[in-house]
Amino acid sequence: MSQILKEHLNKFIVCSDDDFDNILKFFSIRTFSKKENLLEEGQICRYHYFVTKGLIRKFFINEKGIEQTTEFAIETWWLTDNIAYEHQLPTSFYIQAVEKSEVFCISQENQKKLVEELPIMERYFRFIYQRAYAASQMRVKYLFSLSKEEFYHQLVSKQPEFVQRVPQYLIASFLGFTPEYLSEIRNHKRS
Amino acid sequence: MSQILKEHLNKFIVCSDDDFDNILKFFSIRTFSKKENLLEEGQICRYHYFVTKGLIRKFFINEKGIEQTTEFAIETWWLTDNIAYEHQLPTSFYIQAVEKSEVFCISQENQKKLVEELPIMERYFRFIYQRAYAASQMRVKYLFSLSKEEFYHQLVSKQPEFVQRVPQYLIASFLGFTPEYLSEIRNHKRS
Repeated sequence: MSQILKEHLNKFIVCSDDDFDNILKFFSIRTFSKKENLLEEGQICRYHYFVTKGLIRKFFINEKGIEQTTEFAIETWWLTDNIAYEHQLPTSFYIQAVEKSEVFCISQENQKKLVEELPIMERYFRFIYQRAYAASQMRVKYLFSLSKEEFYHQLVSKQPEFVQRVPQYLIASFLGFTPEYLSEIRNHKRS
Repeated sequence: MSQILKEHLNKFIVCSDDDFDNILKFFSIRTFSKKENLLEEGQICRYHYFVTKGLIRKFFINEKGIEQTTEFAIETWWLTDNIAYEHQLPTSFYIQAVEKSEVFCISQENQKKLVEELPIMERYFRFIYQRAYAASQMRVKYLFSLSKEEFYHQLVSKQPEFVQRVPQYLIASFLGFTPEYLSEIRNHKRS
């Protein structure tokens, strides 16, 4: 599945076959079964994850003991707890495979070495963080401006395949709904 | 005030005097009076702003006609509407000076040229976006896990100088409070 990473790099930078072979050495490739945790609350967040197959999610357990999902990542998306990763701190999140997933993992130490040895990777990661930040800013805007129901409908209209693919109880966990309430909204829409 | 930008660059990269003179050419320096708009809803978002003196904020007008502040920037912080900036689209935000401010402005075209001419700036912007993204992720977590009142108390304990500096009605606008409610919480805390 390294082809997926290569194609993704080539969207942003010019990367020769030799460069790519070199880049690959900084990653470990792991497979996670459905519901297996890549990271657990309290652990040092050692890796930045690039999904080449499957679907993973990030969540925390709120004060009511309920899993609140804050992000998903499908093929070609990166995911980690960025503050804990940068500073090598214990995380307050879980990262879990939603489907059986193949993930390219890069440790914080290796990511540092990688950008030093291949400065072109600074450009790649600059794009990745720039886009992720822009998306996160829009998320903050939506959290203030849209009701949860409006946010659901926007998700359905903008990312129909994503909504189709993710189990409904996790869509509910992402939106801060109970699964029952989500079911009500969906039935209401149909009627 | 170019010294402030230079010191900020030197926190992340090694930048010679010649490099810095070169970098400066990509920026225009502007001063904004209190309450002057740097950017208005509907305008193409042309600039990325680096504050060297003062305080600016980003807000949108919600469906009730109320200004919802989503971000602030003080000295050495960057601010823009990142999606609109990257794609040169009309923005749905306003950016406004809270205090009389001096701002280094870089157009999207110039930022592109800058990172091409001085690849070391890819590293600088990679750090900027990485940290901004990490902070934004935590913001999303807080929006889900803290009540508005808890978020206010956290802000006071983690950023007391910031809370002191920003007018109370803007703190309220950032938290999604009415100014009256914020005043109630503050009085409650004191009593």
